[in-house]
Amino acid sequence: MKTKAAVAWQAGAPLTIEEVDLEGPRTGEVLVEVKASGICHTDWYTLSGADPEGLFPAILGHEGAGVVLEVGDGVGSLKPGDHVIPLYTPECRQCKFCLSRKTNLCQAIRATQGRGVMPDGTSRFSIDGRPLFHYMGTSTFANYTVVPEIALAKIRDDAPFDTVCYIGCGVTTGIGAVLFTAKVEAGANVVVFGLGGIGLNVIQGARMVGADRIIGIDINPRREALARQFGMTDFIDPNKVDNVVDTIVQLTDGGADYSFECIGNVSTMRQALECCHKGWGQSIVIGVAGAGEEISTRPFQLVTGRVWKGTAFGGARGRTDVPKIVDWYMDGKIHIDELITHRLTLAQINDGFDLMERGESIRSVVLF
Amino acid sequence: MKTKAAVAWQAGAPLTIEEVDLEGPRTGEVLVEVKASGICHTDWYTLSGADPEGLFPAILGHEGAGVVLEVGDGVGSLKPGDHVIPLYTPECRQCKFCLSRKTNLCQAIRATQGRGVMPDGTSRFSIDGRPLFHYMGTSTFANYTVVPEIALAKIRDDAPFDTVCYIGCGVTTGIGAVLFTAKVEAGANVVVFGLGGIGLNVIQGARMVGADRIIGIDINPRREALARQFGMTDFIDPNKVDNVVDTIVQLTDGGADYSFECIGNVSTMRQALECCHKGWGQSIVIGVAGAGEEISTRPFQLVTGRVWKGTAFGGARGRTDVPKIVDWYMDGKIHIDELITHRLTLAQINDGFDLMERGESIRSVVLF
Repeated sequence: MKTKAAVAWQAGAPLTIEEVDLEGPRTGEVLVEVKASGICHTDWYTLSGADPEGLFPAILGHEGAGVVLEVGDGVGSLKPGDHVIPLYTPECRQCKFCLSRKTNLCQAIRATQGRGVMPDGTSRFSIDGRPLFHYMGTSTFANYTVVPEIALAKIRDDAPFDTVCYIGCGVTTGIGAVLFTAKVEAGANVVVFGLGGIGLNVIQGARMVGADRIIGIDINPRREALARQFGMTDFIDPNKVDNVVDTIVQLTDGGADYSFECIGNVSTMRQALECCHKGWGQSIVIGVAGAGEEISTRPFQLVTGRVWKGTAFGGARGRTDVPKIVDWYMDGKIHIDELITHRLTLAQINDGFDLMERGESIRSVVLF
Repeated sequence: MKTKAAVAWQAGAPLTIEEVDLEGPRTGEVLVEVKASGICHTDWYTLSGADPEGLFPAILGHEGAGVVLEVGDGVGSLKPGDHVIPLYTPECRQCKFCLSRKTNLCQAIRATQGRGVMPDGTSRFSIDGRPLFHYMGTSTFANYTVVPEIALAKIRDDAPFDTVCYIGCGVTTGIGAVLFTAKVEAGANVVVFGLGGIGLNVIQGARMVGADRIIGIDINPRREALARQFGMTDFIDPNKVDNVVDTIVQLTDGGADYSFECIGNVSTMRQALECCHKGWGQSIVIGVAGAGEEISTRPFQLVTGRVWKGTAFGGARGRTDVPKIVDWYMDGKIHIDELITHRLTLAQINDGFDLMERGESIRSVVLF
């Protein structure tokens, strides 16, 4: 069959919209009609050429929602018509990682996913017989895509695609970091470095579980209003205080119970650790630092009880937790509508990247 | 009254044995007859002058065991004749830290303890009217010492002083790191960097809770035999392998579930983190690094699920957990006798420091 898709031919070049050949699902695979796809910073990172593991030509996109059209042999958990969110972190429920009960980082198809191909080592996308790489196992910048069964979360039918697609990455990453990685408890105080999409979702996750004080930090004062709407109680502009860490420690009577770094800057990662409360404060790294960059601190920070950890996809198990997050959205426990700042056609996808680069969007979504 | 004590007059100089004036216990304080005191690396660190917070002249020693002789006003939990272990990490059960249920770092008397005085701001020790500093709130290199009630663990009467004194620091630090900080579970694999006294206690803690594989790492091959006796299953001499981290990852089919750094070297702290299993491996810093030294790693190590934490006094609450550890020793669940390699008189205390510096002792104990 054919699909319309935005093709990334090479690093640094705009995407072009093409008619791409798409082979049907093989064993354990599912053909999905993508209805909406968010444009995430990680897509931009790969497209920019900064990602040392980026492969071209490829079909990017990893934050989608859609409908199952056809299933391959051996697919038992999904049928045509099911609504789904593709998962760049799959959940096979059989590997050492899934069975550990300690991590969401299923490794069942990691090697082939990293090489831009399906688990059998081949691509379903091609143009004129030339294969295109899959991206993060999802390739949602295409009207139709093929995804392994274990990389699809089945969600309820009444959830709108143009908002729940954001649960495929940003929402889950932020809320999950609070619920699944940090396990923030009611009454805790929480500090959030960076008030972009991830930071806002950390904030609403903290509000959802009953955090007392939720302190947001951003050099851009225009972020304050929306962050307050999402639950932030205090705002710090680092350019307006002498020392961010000291300011947080004073404001919290000793330091953060939990801090979240949502920027990807190794200096703020250090601040996020060091603003934690002695004895128990935990700092969770969410942001992705540049290749080769390192974090550092005095080990005394750890010996006196601070904990440094990180999270990927919010510690969420895709097939288990993503449908729950969709329910929370539908029940009004979390909000997404306000975060979808732009809706675009596939032909406007490069505009979406431009809006993100200029910091003018929270989330742009491509509608098919 | 008078007490015999080893006085540290200045950094870098040997201790001298003196008759020291000791004032009786004031409100909330307890006079203890010290029966035995271990010589710990931390005493040496302070005596060497490397500790930026070291105060002189002082009576060092923080790993003791003894008997209550007299209690001051308001002391309700102890009476003359009780056997006790002094605690450099007290447990007031009333401060924010004690009540948090998340840390053992009671802060009730931290400020005065750090200044080398009792909670009322004065010293009980003097010579010719000149005050001597207390050390770590314990000063166990004296036949008699005064300690706050909240800094004394009451232990059973049948436990021998010359071995359980080691529970006052090294034993609890190592075993507690496994039980209270890491919470190692049965079947886990554990990696221990440094097979001195702390490392050996980490090993027996891991054995006690049912760890499967216990891998010890030391550049000194003479450490191997005793470590195996304490539960080590595999030994790695870093000088005999190409890459310690790779060797551990291979040996454990993916990495350590828990690693412990018992050296105080920032390079091995990094190795200890990076040898942890993706998704869940936790590395616990026990060793104390030199002043100003920093640890570093790529944040990717955390984002992919490794956790970096530390521990002080093994995360143990002194008055609550130390008596339990004494019971475990008396019940044969843990071993201490083999670790007490030298028994000395107070007059031989400088020999004990020499033995430690030359790596010839596990633990030397001064008997009064």
